[in-house]
Amino acid sequence: MDHGGGRAGAGTIGSAGSLGLRVGQAVFSSASLLFMSVGVEFFSYTAFCFLVTIMGLVIPWSCTLAMIDVYSIFMGCPLRVPGVMFIVVVGDCVLSLVSFAAACSSAAVIDLLLQFHGSHCSPRFCGRYQLSAMMAFLSWFLMAVSALFNFWFLASR
Amino acid sequence: MDHGGGRAGAGTIGSAGSLGLRVGQAVFSSASLLFMSVGVEFFSYTAFCFLVTIMGLVIPWSCTLAMIDVYSIFMGCPLRVPGVMFIVVVGDCVLSLVSFAAACSSAAVIDLLLQFHGSHCSPRFCGRYQLSAMMAFLSWFLMAVSALFNFWFLASR
Repeated sequence: MDHGGGRAGAGTIGSAGSLGLRVGQAVFSSASLLFMSVGVEFFSYTAFCFLVTIMGLVIPWSCTLAMIDVYSIFMGCPLRVPGVMFIVVVGDCVLSLVSFAAACSSAAVIDLLLQFHGSHCSPRFCGRYQLSAMMAFLSWFLMAVSALFNFWFLASR
Repeated sequence: MDHGGGRAGAGTIGSAGSLGLRVGQAVFSSASLLFMSVGVEFFSYTAFCFLVTIMGLVIPWSCTLAMIDVYSIFMGCPLRVPGVMFIVVVGDCVLSLVSFAAACSSAAVIDLLLQFHGSHCSPRFCGRYQLSAMMAFLSWFLMAVSALFNFWFLASR
């Protein structure tokens, strides 16, 4: 099997596809963090605090890996050491799992707030909560795609 | 590579490990369904309805695959056709994802109920909701383990 080398895997670390995925993750998680935390009192709900914490973890992780991708693309030598790949896969899996959990929890809490607290949840606030949860779902999706590509590459070596 | 044949993979379909995982999934998801639906008015919360629906899908899936495992063990010929494995992996992934989403949503809603509705959520009801969410998490974990084993086997062929 001639993986690696000349033909880069579609979304494995060190390829342009991976860079795109990482940039998307960073953008969506930043948007989620901003929609949730700027001008909205998010800290009275556990699920929203969890979402903010997790998005604060996803942003540095994605930015670091985006920088590694840029470096690999410019130097022309993708960093495909199995040990590093393994750490990346484990980190991606864990972060995508917790960001999915945070997005689901926030969505469920928003639904409950809309259902029972029509007066407590003004359209302006609830609309921003919903946007934030949607961005978190998009960020989770891109992170899961990255994790799958890297895992497939690692498993098929 | 000599996968399959004599040495069965630890948790891939048709092995004793897989049978154990499937039985665990069926038991935990049945427990979650019963704790949530018997004698508790779950239908006023969207997240709890979602949990009940998903657990109602997980039970027949796990039971069917447990029967296939029993058949394979008794006949001594594990069913490791790539097409069938692919369907099993996709089904496991989708079901584990939605059962995780249901468990997270229920946990977030229970947390909010305990925080703001101390009077609406009697200890008897909320304790059962919590037990149900815990069982759903256990069922998700076992299903994710099954999915990982089968995916690894499929990817390393």
